[in-house]
Amino acid sequence: MQNKNLRSYIEEARAKSIAIGHFNFSTFDVAKAIIKAAKELDMPVILGLSEGERDFVGVHEAAAYVRAIREHFYAPVFLNADHTYSYERVVEAVEAGFDMVIFDDAGGDLEKNIEEASRCREFVTEYNKAHGTDVLFEAELGYIGQSSKILESLPEGLQMTTPEDAKNFIGRVRPDLIAPAVGNVHGMLKDMPDPELDSARVGEIFAATDISMVLHGASGNTKEDIQACIKNGVVIVHVNTEIRVAYKNALVKNTVSEELSPYKYLAKVEEEVKEVVKEKIKEFTFLV
Amino acid sequence: MQNKNLRSYIEEARAKSIAIGHFNFSTFDVAKAIIKAAKELDMPVILGLSEGERDFVGVHEAAAYVRAIREHFYAPVFLNADHTYSYERVVEAVEAGFDMVIFDDAGGDLEKNIEEASRCREFVTEYNKAHGTDVLFEAELGYIGQSSKILESLPEGLQMTTPEDAKNFIGRVRPDLIAPAVGNVHGMLKDMPDPELDSARVGEIFAATDISMVLHGASGNTKEDIQACIKNGVVIVHVNTEIRVAYKNALVKNTVSEELSPYKYLAKVEEEVKEVVKEKIKEFTFLV
Repeated sequence: MQNKNLRSYIEEARAKSIAIGHFNFSTFDVAKAIIKAAKELDMPVILGLSEGERDFVGVHEAAAYVRAIREHFYAPVFLNADHTYSYERVVEAVEAGFDMVIFDDAGGDLEKNIEEASRCREFVTEYNKAHGTDVLFEAELGYIGQSSKILESLPEGLQMTTPEDAKNFIGRVRPDLIAPAVGNVHGMLKDMPDPELDSARVGEIFAATDISMVLHGASGNTKEDIQACIKNGVVIVHVNTEIRVAYKNALVKNTVSEELSPYKYLAKVEEEVKEVVKEKIKEFTFLV
Repeated sequence: MQNKNLRSYIEEARAKSIAIGHFNFSTFDVAKAIIKAAKELDMPVILGLSEGERDFVGVHEAAAYVRAIREHFYAPVFLNADHTYSYERVVEAVEAGFDMVIFDDAGGDLEKNIEEASRCREFVTEYNKAHGTDVLFEAELGYIGQSSKILESLPEGLQMTTPEDAKNFIGRVRPDLIAPAVGNVHGMLKDMPDPELDSARVGEIFAATDISMVLHGASGNTKEDIQACIKNGVVIVHVNTEIRVAYKNALVKNTVSEELSPYKYLAKVEEEVKEVVKEKIKEFTFLV
Protein backbone atom coordinates (compact mmCIF):
# COMPACT_ATOMS: atom_id res chain seq x y z
CA MET A 1 0.00 0.00 0.00
CA GLN A 2 1.15 3.50 -0.88
CA ASN A 3 1.82 5.57 2.22
CA LYS A 4 2.93 8.92 0.88
CA ASN A 5 0.09 10.78 -0.76
CA LEU A 6 0.10 13.06 -3.76
CA ARG A 7 0.44 16.19 -1.62
CA SER A 8 3.69 14.83 -0.18
CA TYR A 9 5.07 14.04 -3.63
CA ILE A 10 4.19 17.53 -4.80
CA GLU A 11 5.90 19.10 -1.80
CA GLU A 12 8.94 16.97 -2.50
CA ALA A 13 8.97 18.00 -6.16
CA ARG A 14 8.66 21.64 -5.13
CA ALA A 15 11.57 21.34 -2.71
CA LYS A 16 13.71 19.77 -5.43
CA SER A 17 12.55 22.16 -8.18
CA ILE A 18 11.41 19.31 -10.38
CA ALA A 19 7.94 18.51 -11.71
CA ILE A 20 5.70 15.45 -11.72
CA GLY A 21 4.48 14.32 -15.12
CA HIS A 22 0.72 14.25 -15.77
CA PHE A 23 -0.31 12.13 -18.74
CA ASN A 24 -3.79 11.51 -20.08
CA PHE A 25 -5.11 8.18 -21.25
CA SER A 26 -8.19 6.85 -23.04
CA THR A 27 -7.26 3.19 -22.73
CA PHE A 28 -5.68 1.22 -19.90
CA ASP A 29 -3.07 0.08 -22.43
CA VAL A 30 -1.70 3.63 -22.41
CA ALA A 31 -2.16 3.93 -18.63
CA LYS A 32 0.05 0.87 -18.24
CA ALA A 33 2.73 2.34 -20.51
CA ILE A 34 2.72 5.53 -18.39
CA ILE A 35 2.92 3.59 -15.13
CA LYS A 36 5.82 1.49 -16.41
CA ALA A 37 7.69 4.57 -17.62
CA ALA A 38 7.40 6.17 -14.17
CA LYS A 39 8.32 2.93 -12.43
CA GLU A 40 11.46 2.50 -14.53
CA LEU A 41 12.55 6.02 -13.59
CA ASP A 42 11.43 5.56 -9.97
CA MET A 43 9.23 8.65 -10.12
CA PRO A 44 5.64 9.34 -9.09
CA VAL A 45 3.21 9.99 -11.92
CA ILE A 46 -0.30 11.35 -12.36
CA LEU A 47 -2.76 9.73 -14.76
CA GLY A 48 -5.27 12.20 -16.12
CA LEU A 49 -8.77 11.77 -17.49
CA SER A 50 -10.64 14.60 -19.17
CA GLU A 51 -14.42 14.40 -19.13
CA GLY A 52 -14.47 12.74 -22.56
CA GLU A 53 -11.77 10.30 -21.52
CA ARG A 54 -13.65 9.58 -18.29
CA ASP A 55 -16.82 8.82 -20.20
CA PHE A 56 -14.98 6.27 -22.30
CA VAL A 57 -12.81 4.64 -19.64
CA GLY A 58 -15.28 4.82 -16.74
CA VAL A 59 -14.63 6.66 -13.45
CA HIS A 60 -15.08 3.58 -11.25
CA GLU A 61 -13.02 1.34 -13.51
CA ALA A 62 -10.19 3.89 -13.57
CA ALA A 63 -10.27 4.37 -9.80
CA ALA A 64 -10.31 0.59 -9.25
CA TYR A 65 -7.42 0.14 -11.67
CA VAL A 66 -5.23 2.75 -9.99
CA ARG A 67 -6.04 1.36 -6.55
CA ALA A 68 -5.01 -2.13 -7.73
CA ILE A 69 -1.73 -0.73 -9.05
CA ARG A 70 -0.98 1.06 -5.79
CA GLU A 71 -1.89 -1.93 -3.62
CA HIS A 72 -0.04 -4.57 -5.57
CA PHE A 73 2.89 -2.81 -7.17
CA TYR A 74 3.71 -0.18 -4.56
CA ALA A 75 3.90 2.37 -7.34
CA PRO A 76 3.12 6.04 -6.61
CA VAL A 77 0.48 6.42 -9.31
CA PHE A 78 -2.29 8.99 -8.84
CA LEU A 79 -5.50 9.69 -10.68
CA ASN A 80 -6.65 13.16 -11.65
CA ALA A 81 -9.97 14.39 -13.00
CA ASP A 82 -8.54 16.71 -15.63
CA HIS A 83 -10.56 19.75 -16.81
CA THR A 84 -13.83 19.20 -15.06
CA TYR A 85 -16.40 21.71 -16.22
CA SER A 86 -19.17 21.22 -13.68
CA TYR A 87 -19.69 20.84 -9.93
CA GLU A 88 -21.54 17.56 -10.55
CA ARG A 89 -18.60 15.98 -12.29
CA VAL A 90 -16.23 17.19 -9.55
CA VAL A 91 -18.44 15.37 -7.05
CA GLU A 92 -18.56 12.24 -9.21
CA ALA A 93 -14.77 12.00 -9.53
CA VAL A 94 -14.07 12.69 -5.87
CA GLU A 95 -16.64 10.13 -4.73
CA ALA A 96 -15.22 7.56 -7.16
CA GLY A 97 -11.84 7.88 -5.45
CA PHE A 98 -9.77 10.21 -7.65
CA ASP A 99 -6.72 11.74 -5.93
CA MET A 100 -7.11 15.14 -7.50
CA VAL A 101 -9.61 17.15 -9.43
CA ILE A 102 -9.30 20.21 -11.65
CA PHE A 103 -12.23 22.54 -11.92
CA ASP A 104 -12.08 24.52 -15.11
CA ASP A 105 -14.38 27.43 -15.70
CA ALA A 106 -11.60 29.53 -17.15
CA GLY A 107 -11.87 31.66 -20.24
CA GLY A 108 -15.19 33.23 -19.36
CA ASP A 109 -16.25 35.60 -16.62
CA LEU A 110 -13.71 35.66 -13.76
CA GLU A 111 -16.31 36.31 -11.04
CA LYS A 112 -18.38 33.34 -12.17
CA ASN A 113 -15.25 31.19 -12.25
CA ILE A 114 -14.42 32.24 -8.67
CA GLU A 115 -17.92 31.49 -7.49
CA GLU A 116 -18.16 28.03 -9.07
CA ALA A 117 -14.58 27.10 -8.15
CA SER A 118 -15.28 28.09 -4.52
CA ARG A 119 -18.30 25.82 -4.45
CA CYS A 120 -16.21 22.90 -5.75
CA ARG A 121 -13.39 23.75 -3.32
CA GLU A 122 -15.85 23.62 -0.45
CA PHE A 123 -17.15 20.24 -1.51
CA VAL A 124 -13.63 18.78 -1.71
CA THR A 125 -12.73 20.20 1.70
CA GLU A 126 -15.85 18.76 3.31
CA TYR A 127 -15.33 15.43 1.57
CA ASN A 128 -11.76 15.22 2.84
CA LYS A 129 -12.88 16.00 6.39
CA ALA A 130 -15.62 13.41 6.29
CA HIS A 131 -13.50 10.64 4.74
CA GLY A 132 -10.01 11.28 6.06
CA THR A 133 -8.78 11.70 2.49
CA ASP A 134 -6.58 14.38 0.98
CA VAL A 135 -8.03 14.92 -2.48
CA LEU A 136 -6.30 17.90 -4.07
CA PHE A 137 -8.19 20.72 -5.71
CA GLU A 138 -6.79 22.62 -8.66
CA ALA A 139 -8.44 25.58 -10.33
CA GLU A 140 -7.68 27.28 -13.60
CA LEU A 141 -7.62 30.89 -14.67
CA GLY A 142 -6.79 32.56 -17.94
CA TYR A 143 -7.57 30.70 -21.15
CA ILE A 144 -5.39 28.31 -23.14
CA GLY A 145 -7.86 26.58 -25.47
CA GLN A 146 -9.44 23.18 -24.88
CA SER A 147 -8.49 20.51 -27.39
CA SER A 148 -5.64 18.01 -27.24
CA LYS A 149 -5.12 17.81 -30.97
CA ILE A 150 -3.03 19.11 -33.84
CA LEU A 151 -4.01 22.75 -34.40
CA GLU A 152 -3.96 24.67 -37.67
CA SER A 153 -3.60 27.94 -35.77
CA LEU A 154 -3.66 29.31 -32.21
CA PRO A 155 -7.04 29.05 -30.43
CA GLU A 156 -8.94 32.33 -30.24
CA GLY A 157 -9.39 34.32 -27.06
CA LEU A 158 -6.22 33.24 -25.27
CA GLN A 159 -5.93 35.13 -21.96
CA MET A 160 -2.70 35.30 -20.00
CA THR A 161 -2.93 35.10 -16.20
CA THR A 162 -1.66 38.17 -14.32
CA PRO A 163 -0.11 37.96 -10.83
CA GLU A 164 -2.88 40.27 -9.56
CA ASP A 165 -5.68 38.06 -10.92
CA ALA A 166 -3.93 34.99 -9.50
CA LYS A 167 -3.58 36.58 -6.06
CA ASN A 168 -7.21 37.64 -5.97
CA PHE A 169 -8.39 34.24 -7.27
CA ILE A 170 -6.29 32.23 -4.82
CA GLY A 171 -7.26 34.39 -1.86
CA ARG A 172 -10.93 33.77 -2.55
CA VAL A 173 -10.98 30.19 -3.88
CA ARG A 174 -8.09 28.70 -1.86
CA PRO A 175 -7.15 25.96 -4.32
CA ASP A 176 -4.21 23.63 -3.61
CA LEU A 177 -2.77 24.37 -7.01
CA ILE A 178 -3.54 26.64 -9.92
CA ALA A 179 -3.20 26.27 -13.66
CA PRO A 180 -2.18 29.66 -15.02
CA ALA A 181 -2.13 30.72 -18.65
CA VAL A 182 1.48 31.56 -19.40
CA GLY A 183 1.70 31.14 -23.16
CA ASN A 184 0.81 27.46 -23.06
CA VAL A 185 -1.97 26.12 -25.31
CA HIS A 186 -3.82 22.84 -25.41
CA GLY A 187 -2.89 20.78 -28.43
CA MET A 188 0.10 21.25 -30.70
CA LEU A 189 0.47 23.58 -33.64
CA LYS A 190 0.72 21.81 -36.95
CA ASP A 191 3.41 23.51 -38.98
CA MET A 192 5.23 25.61 -36.42
CA PRO A 193 6.51 25.34 -32.86
CA ASP A 194 4.09 26.23 -30.06
CA PRO A 195 4.48 29.83 -28.77
CA GLU A 196 7.20 30.40 -26.18
CA LEU A 197 6.24 29.91 -22.55
CA ASP A 198 6.42 32.99 -20.37
CA SER A 199 8.48 31.53 -17.55
CA ALA A 200 9.06 35.00 -16.11
CA ARG A 201 5.32 35.30 -15.62
CA VAL A 202 5.34 31.96 -13.79
CA GLY A 203 7.97 33.41 -11.47
CA GLU A 204 5.95 36.59 -10.92
CA ILE A 205 2.80 34.65 -10.05
CA PHE A 206 4.80 32.45 -7.70
CA ALA A 207 6.38 35.47 -6.01
CA ALA A 208 2.95 37.08 -5.55
CA THR A 209 1.14 33.97 -4.28
CA ASP A 210 3.57 31.22 -3.24
CA ILE A 211 1.23 28.68 -4.86
CA SER A 212 2.37 25.55 -6.67
CA MET A 213 1.51 25.70 -10.33
CA VAL A 214 0.48 23.24 -12.99
CA LEU A 215 1.52 23.67 -16.59
CA HIS A 216 -1.17 22.43 -18.96
CA GLY A 217 -0.83 21.93 -22.67
CA ALA A 218 2.91 21.24 -22.63
CA SER A 219 2.80 19.11 -25.79
CA GLY A 220 4.81 20.91 -28.44
CA ASN A 221 6.78 23.15 -26.05
CA THR A 222 10.56 22.97 -25.88
CA LYS A 223 12.41 21.31 -23.04
CA GLU A 224 14.14 24.60 -22.24
CA ASP A 225 10.86 26.49 -21.92
CA ILE A 226 9.29 23.82 -19.74
CA GLN A 227 12.31 23.54 -17.49
CA ALA A 228 12.42 27.33 -17.05
CA CYS A 229 8.81 27.20 -15.85
CA ILE A 230 9.61 24.35 -13.45
CA LYS A 231 12.45 26.38 -11.96
CA ASN A 232 10.00 29.23 -11.41
CA GLY A 233 7.19 27.39 -9.62
CA VAL A 234 5.60 24.69 -11.82
CA VAL A 235 5.32 21.33 -10.01
CA ILE A 236 3.14 19.35 -12.44
CA VAL A 237 3.38 19.30 -16.23
CA HIS A 238 0.56 17.99 -18.42
CA VAL A 239 1.16 16.16 -21.68
CA ASN A 240 -1.60 14.64 -23.74
CA THR A 241 -1.32 15.30 -27.48
CA GLU A 242 2.19 13.87 -27.81
CA ILE A 243 1.07 10.65 -26.09
CA ARG A 244 -1.94 10.42 -28.38
CA VAL A 245 0.31 10.80 -31.41
CA ALA A 246 2.75 8.16 -30.13
CA TYR A 247 -0.05 5.71 -29.32
CA LYS A 248 -1.78 6.07 -32.64
CA ASN A 249 1.42 5.83 -34.68
CA ALA A 250 2.43 2.73 -32.71
CA LEU A 251 -1.00 1.14 -33.27
CA VAL A 252 -0.81 1.71 -37.01
CA LYS A 253 2.73 0.37 -37.19
CA ASN A 254 2.17 -2.71 -35.06
CA THR A 255 -1.08 -3.92 -36.58
CA VAL A 256 0.51 -4.42 -40.00
CA SER A 257 1.98 -7.87 -39.25
CA GLU A 258 0.05 -11.14 -39.30
CA GLU A 259 0.30 -11.42 -35.49
CA LEU A 260 -3.18 -11.99 -34.10
CA SER A 261 -2.49 -12.09 -30.34
CA PRO A 262 -3.36 -8.60 -29.10
CA TYR A 263 -1.02 -8.92 -26.16
CA LYS A 264 1.89 -9.48 -28.52
CA TYR A 265 1.40 -6.47 -30.76
CA LEU A 266 0.02 -4.28 -27.95
CA ALA A 267 3.21 -4.98 -25.99
CA LYS A 268 5.10 -3.25 -28.80
CA VAL A 269 2.66 -0.33 -28.73
CA GLU A 270 3.15 -0.08 -24.96
CA GLU A 271 6.92 -0.04 -25.39
CA GLU A 272 6.78 2.86 -27.84
CA VAL A 273 4.41 4.95 -25.72
CA LYS A 274 6.50 4.20 -22.64
CA GLU A 275 9.63 5.59 -24.28
CA VAL A 276 7.89 8.87 -25.14
CA VAL A 277 6.62 9.19 -21.55
CA LYS A 278 10.07 8.41 -20.15
CA GLU A 279 11.62 11.19 -22.22
CA LYS A 280 9.06 13.62 -20.83
CA ILE A 281 9.60 12.55 -17.23
CA LYS A 282 13.34 12.93 -17.73
CA GLU A 283 12.79 16.49 -18.95
CA PHE A 284 10.56 17.34 -15.99
CA THR A 285 13.10 15.97 -13.52
CA PHE A 286 16.17 17.46 -15.21
CA LEU A 287 17.62 14.04 -16.04
CA VAL A 288 18.10 15.39 -19.56
CA MET B 1 -23.71 -5.49 -5.97
CA GLN B 2 -24.20 -8.77 -7.83
CA ASN B 3 -26.08 -11.30 -5.74
CA LYS B 4 -26.35 -14.35 -7.96
CA ASN B 5 -23.01 -16.02 -8.47
CA LEU B 6 -21.60 -17.77 -11.51
CA ARG B 7 -22.73 -21.19 -10.28
CA SER B 8 -26.34 -19.97 -10.20
CA TYR B 9 -26.11 -18.57 -13.72
CA ILE B 10 -24.66 -21.86 -14.96
CA GLU B 11 -27.46 -23.82 -13.31
CA GLU B 12 -29.96 -21.49 -14.91
CA ALA B 13 -28.32 -21.92 -18.33
CA ARG B 14 -28.37 -25.68 -17.87
CA ALA B 15 -32.04 -25.67 -16.97
CA LYS B 16 -32.83 -23.60 -20.05
CA SER B 17 -30.50 -25.55 -22.36
CA ILE B 18 -28.61 -22.44 -23.34
CA ALA B 19 -24.95 -21.55 -22.87
CA ILE B 20 -23.06 -18.63 -21.37
CA GLY B 21 -20.51 -16.99 -23.67
CA HIS B 22 -16.86 -16.95 -22.58
CA PHE B 23 -14.71 -14.41 -24.40
CA ASN B 24 -11.02 -13.72 -23.96
CA PHE B 25 -9.44 -10.30 -23.87
CA SER B 26 -5.95 -8.81 -23.87
CA THR B 27 -7.05 -5.23 -23.40
CA PHE B 28 -9.80 -3.69 -21.29
CA ASP B 29 -11.07 -2.06 -24.47
CA VAL B 30 -12.16 -5.50 -25.64
CA ALA B 31 -13.41 -6.43 -22.15
CA LYS B 32 -15.68 -3.39 -22.27
CA ALA B 33 -17.04 -4.37 -25.69
CA ILE B 34 -17.83 -7.85 -24.34
CA ILE B 35 -19.53 -6.47 -21.23
CA LYS B 36 -21.65 -4.08 -23.28
CA ALA B 37 -22.68 -6.85 -25.67
CA ALA B 38 -23.87 -9.00 -22.77
CA LYS B 39 -25.58 -6.06 -21.10
CA GLU B 40 -27.49 -5.17 -24.28
CA LEU B 41 -28.76 -8.76 -24.49
CA ASP B 42 -29.35 -8.92 -20.74
CA MET B 43 -27.19 -12.03 -20.42
CA PRO B 44 -24.40 -13.03 -18.04
CA VAL B 45 -20.94 -13.29 -19.57
CA ILE B 46 -17.55 -14.69 -18.66
CA LEU B 47 -14.35 -12.79 -19.43
CA GLY B 48 -11.41 -15.11 -19.92
CA LEU B 49 -7.68 -14.60 -19.53
CA SER B 50 -5.15 -17.18 -20.66
CA GLU B 51 -1.78 -17.13 -18.91
CA GLY B 52 -0.30 -14.94 -21.66
CA GLU B 53 -3.28 -12.60 -21.54
CA ARG B 54 -3.04 -12.48 -17.73
CA ASP B 55 0.63 -11.54 -17.90
CA PHE B 56 -0.21 -8.62 -20.16
CA VAL B 57 -3.39 -7.37 -18.49
CA GLY B 58 -2.43 -8.12 -14.86
CA VAL B 59 -4.39 -10.43 -12.55
CA HIS B 60 -5.07 -7.79 -9.91
CA GLU B 61 -6.01 -5.13 -12.44
CA ALA B 62 -8.42 -7.53 -14.14
CA ALA B 63 -10.00 -8.62 -10.86
CA ALA B 64 -10.35 -4.98 -9.74
CA TYR B 65 -11.90 -4.03 -13.07
CA VAL B 66 -14.50 -6.79 -12.98
CA ARG B 67 -15.33 -6.02 -9.35
CA ALA B 68 -15.87 -2.36 -10.28
CA ILE B 69 -18.19 -3.39 -13.12
CA ARG B 70 -20.23 -5.65 -10.85
CA GLU B 71 -20.48 -3.09 -8.07
CA HIS B 72 -21.37 -0.09 -10.18
CA PHE B 73 -23.23 -1.46 -13.18
CA TYR B 74 -25.01 -4.45 -11.64
CA ALA B 75 -23.87 -6.51 -14.60
CA PRO B 76 -23.35 -10.27 -14.19
CA VAL B 77 -19.78 -10.32 -15.49
CA PHE B 78 -17.41 -13.02 -14.28
CA LEU B 79 -13.68 -13.53 -14.61
CA ASN B 80 -12.09 -16.83 -15.53
CA ALA B 81 -8.47 -17.95 -15.46
CA ASP B 82 -8.52 -19.75 -18.79
CA HIS B 83 -6.07 -22.62 -19.46
CA THR B 84 -3.92 -22.50 -16.38
CA TYR B 85 -1.01 -24.88 -16.68
CA SER B 86 0.36 -24.92 -13.13
CA TYR B 87 -0.84 -25.18 -9.54
CA GLU B 88 0.96 -21.92 -8.72
CA ARG B 89 -0.99 -19.96 -11.30
CA VAL B 90 -4.26 -21.51 -10.14
CA VAL B 91 -3.45 -20.20 -6.64
CA GLU B 92 -2.51 -16.77 -7.99
CA ALA B 93 -5.78 -16.35 -9.90
CA VAL B 94 -7.99 -17.59 -7.09
CA GLU B 95 -6.28 -15.36 -4.53
CA ALA B 96 -6.59 -12.37 -6.88
CA GLY B 97 -10.37 -12.84 -6.91
CA PHE B 98 -11.18 -14.70 -10.15
CA ASP B 99 -14.60 -16.37 -10.20
CA MET B 100 -13.44 -19.48 -11.98
CA VAL B 101 -10.25 -21.24 -12.93
CA ILE B 102 -9.45 -23.88 -15.52
CA PHE B 103 -6.62 -26.24 -14.84
CA ASP B 104 -5.26 -27.67 -18.07
CA ASP B 105 -2.81 -30.51 -18.03
CA ALA B 106 -4.61 -32.25 -20.89
CA GLY B 107 -2.92 -33.83 -23.86
CA GLY B 108 -0.26 -35.63 -21.85
CA ASP B 109 -0.42 -38.48 -19.36
CA LEU B 110 -3.95 -38.92 -17.96
CA GLU B 111 -2.79 -40.11 -14.52
CA LYS B 112 -0.55 -37.07 -14.11
CA ASN B 113 -3.42 -34.81 -15.23
CA ILE B 114 -5.69 -36.41 -12.60
CA GLU B 115 -3.09 -36.00 -9.88
CA GLU B 116 -2.34 -32.35 -10.61
CA ALA B 117 -5.98 -31.44 -11.23
CA SER B 118 -6.91 -33.01 -7.88
CA ARG B 119 -4.31 -30.91 -6.12
CA CYS B 120 -5.74 -27.76 -7.70
CA ARG B 121 -9.29 -28.88 -6.93
CA GLU B 122 -8.37 -29.33 -3.28
CA PHE B 123 -6.85 -25.85 -3.12
CA VAL B 124 -9.98 -24.26 -4.61
CA THR B 125 -12.23 -26.18 -2.21
CA GLU B 126 -10.19 -25.13 0.82
CA TYR B 127 -10.02 -21.54 -0.41
CA ASN B 128 -13.80 -21.42 -0.81
CA LYS B 129 -14.31 -22.81 2.69
CA ALA B 130 -11.90 -20.33 4.22
CA HIS B 131 -13.24 -17.28 2.37
CA GLY B 132 -16.92 -18.01 1.90
CA THR B 133 -16.44 -17.80 -1.87
CA ASP B 134 -17.66 -20.10 -4.60
CA VAL B 135 -14.82 -20.12 -7.12
CA LEU B 136 -15.57 -22.73 -9.77
CA PHE B 137 -13.05 -25.33 -10.83
CA GLU B 138 -12.92 -26.64 -14.37
CA ALA B 139 -10.58 -29.35 -15.61
CA GLU B 140 -9.77 -30.47 -19.09
CA LEU B 141 -9.20 -33.84 -20.66
CA GLY B 142 -8.44 -34.91 -24.18
CA TYR B 143 -6.40 -32.57 -26.37
CA ILE B 144 -7.58 -29.80 -28.71
CA GLY B 145 -4.39 -27.79 -29.38
CA GLN B 146 -3.39 -24.61 -27.60
CA SER B 147 -3.23 -21.54 -29.78
CA SER B 148 -5.97 -18.99 -30.52
CA LYS B 149 -4.79 -18.15 -34.01
CA ILE B 150 -5.36 -18.88 -37.69
CA LEU B 151 -4.10 -22.40 -38.34
CA GLU B 152 -2.63 -23.76 -41.58
CA SER B 153 -3.66 -27.28 -40.58
CA LEU B 154 -5.12 -29.22 -37.65
CA PRO B 155 -2.88 -29.37 -34.52
CA GLU B 156 -1.11 -32.71 -34.05
CA GLY B 157 -2.01 -35.22 -31.37
CA LEU B 158 -5.70 -34.33 -31.02
CA GLN B 159 -7.33 -36.74 -28.54
CA MET B 160 -11.09 -37.12 -28.24
CA THR B 161 -12.58 -37.57 -24.75
CA THR B 162 -14.42 -40.85 -24.16
CA PRO B 163 -17.36 -41.16 -21.72
CA GLU B 164 -15.33 -43.73 -19.75
CA ASP B 165 -12.32 -41.44 -19.37
CA ALA B 166 -14.62 -38.59 -18.39
CA LYS B 167 -16.41 -40.70 -15.77
CA ASN B 168 -13.14 -41.91 -14.27
CA PHE B 169 -11.65 -38.40 -14.34
CA ILE B 170 -14.68 -36.73 -12.77
CA GLY B 171 -15.02 -39.40 -10.07
CA ARG B 172 -11.46 -38.80 -8.98
CA VAL B 173 -10.96 -35.06 -9.55
CA ARG B 174 -14.49 -33.80 -8.78
CA PRO B 175 -14.36 -30.65 -10.94
CA ASP B 176 -17.40 -28.38 -11.20
CA LEU B 177 -17.19 -28.50 -14.97
CA ILE B 178 -15.12 -30.29 -17.57
CA ALA B 179 -13.80 -29.28 -20.95
CA PRO B 180 -13.99 -32.35 -23.15
CA ALA B 181 -12.38 -32.81 -26.56
CA VAL B 182 -15.27 -33.38 -28.95
CA GLY B 183 -13.81 -32.34 -32.28
CA ASN B 184 -13.22 -28.75 -31.21
CA VAL B 185 -9.78 -27.17 -31.77
CA HIS B 186 -8.20 -23.97 -30.50
CA GLY B 187 -7.81 -21.41 -33.24
CA MET B 188 -9.48 -21.40 -36.65
CA LEU B 189 -8.42 -23.19 -39.79
CA LYS B 190 -7.25 -20.87 -42.51
CA ASP B 191 -8.71 -22.11 -45.78
CA MET B 192 -11.39 -24.54 -44.68
CA PRO B 193 -14.10 -24.83 -42.04
CA ASP B 194 -13.14 -26.27 -38.66
CA PRO B 195 -13.91 -30.00 -38.27
CA GLU B 196 -17.45 -30.90 -37.26
CA LEU B 197 -18.22 -31.05 -33.56
CA ASP B 198 -19.21 -34.46 -32.22
CA SER B 199 -22.36 -33.41 -30.39
CA ALA B 200 -23.38 -37.03 -29.94
CA ARG B 201 -20.22 -37.55 -27.91
CA VAL B 202 -21.18 -34.56 -25.75
CA GLY B 203 -24.50 -36.27 -25.11
CA GLU B 204 -22.81 -39.59 -24.26
CA ILE B 205 -20.43 -37.93 -21.79
CA PHE B 206 -23.35 -36.06 -20.23
CA ALA B 207 -25.39 -39.27 -19.93
CA ALA B 208 -22.47 -41.03 -18.28
CA THR B 209 -21.50 -38.27 -15.85
CA ASP B 210 -24.26 -35.64 -15.56
CA ILE B 211 -21.55 -32.96 -15.52
CA SER B 212 -21.90 -29.52 -17.11
CA MET B 213 -19.51 -29.11 -20.00
CA VAL B 214 -17.52 -26.27 -21.49
CA LEU B 215 -16.85 -26.07 -25.20
CA HIS B 216 -13.46 -24.55 -25.90
CA GLY B 217 -12.14 -23.45 -29.24
CA ALA B 218 -15.53 -22.64 -30.73
CA SER B 219 -14.14 -20.01 -33.12
CA GLY B 220 -14.72 -21.27 -36.64
CA ASN B 221 -17.43 -23.79 -35.77
CA THR B 222 -20.91 -23.52 -37.25
CA LYS B 223 -23.87 -22.29 -35.28
CA GLU B 224 -25.65 -25.59 -35.88
CA ASP B 225 -22.76 -27.63 -34.48
CA ILE B 226 -22.42 -25.41 -31.41
CA GLN B 227 -26.15 -25.39 -30.71
CA ALA B 228 -26.30 -29.19 -31.00
CA CYS B 229 -23.57 -29.40 -28.33
CA ILE B 230 -25.45 -26.95 -26.09
CA LYS B 231 -28.58 -29.10 -26.35
CA ASN B 232 -26.52 -32.09 -25.26
CA GLY B 233 -24.85 -30.68 -22.15
CA VAL B 234 -22.57 -27.71 -22.96
CA VAL B 235 -23.24 -24.71 -20.67
CA ILE B 236 -20.30 -22.43 -21.52
CA VAL B 237 -18.85 -21.76 -24.98
CA HIS B 238 -15.40 -20.21 -25.46
CA VAL B 239 -14.58 -17.86 -28.30
CA ASN B 240 -11.26 -16.12 -28.65
CA THR B 241 -9.84 -16.15 -32.19
CA GLU B 242 -12.90 -14.55 -33.78
CA ILE B 243 -12.77 -11.71 -31.24
CA ARG B 244 -9.09 -11.20 -31.92
CA VAL B 245 -9.75 -11.01 -35.64
CA ALA B 246 -12.60 -8.53 -35.15
CA TYR B 247 -10.54 -6.34 -32.81
CA LYS B 248 -7.52 -6.21 -35.05
CA ASN B 249 -9.50 -5.53 -38.21
CA ALA B 250 -11.39 -2.76 -36.41
CA LEU B 251 -8.13 -1.23 -35.13
CA VAL B 252 -6.62 -1.17 -38.61
CA LYS B 253 -9.78 0.30 -40.10
CA ASN B 254 -10.33 2.98 -37.47
CA THR B 255 -6.80 4.32 -37.19
CA VAL B 256 -6.75 5.41 -40.83
CA SER B 257 -8.51 8.74 -40.25
CA GLU B 258 -6.90 11.92 -38.91
CA GLU B 259 -8.81 11.58 -35.62
CA LEU B 260 -6.30 11.76 -32.76
CA SER B 261 -8.58 11.28 -29.72
CA PRO B 262 -8.20 7.60 -28.83
CA TYR B 263 -11.62 7.51 -27.20
CA LYS B 264 -13.21 8.58 -30.47
CA TYR B 265 -11.66 5.95 -32.74
CA LEU B 266 -11.58 3.28 -30.00
CA ALA B 267 -15.33 3.77 -29.54
CA LYS B 268 -15.74 2.59 -33.14
CA VAL B 269 -13.47 -0.39 -32.48
CA GLU B 270 -15.55 -1.22 -29.42
CA GLU B 271 -18.74 -1.07 -31.45
CA GLU B 272 -17.44 -3.53 -34.04
CA VAL B 273 -16.15 -6.01 -31.46
CA LYS B 274 -19.41 -5.70 -29.54
CA GLU B 275 -21.45 -6.68 -32.58
CA VAL B 276 -19.38 -9.85 -33.11
CA VAL B 277 -19.82 -10.78 -29.44
CA LYS B 278 -23.55 -10.14 -29.60
CA GLU B 279 -23.93 -12.47 -32.57
CA LYS B 280 -22.14 -15.19 -30.60
CA ILE B 281 -24.25 -14.71 -27.48
CA LYS B 282 -27.36 -14.86 -29.63
CA GLU B 283 -26.20 -18.18 -31.06
CA PHE B 284 -25.47 -19.59 -27.60
CA THR B 285 -28.89 -18.55 -26.30
CA PHE B 286 -30.84 -19.63 -29.41
CA LEU B 287 -31.90 -16.07 -30.20
CA VAL B 288 -30.75 -16.82 -33.76
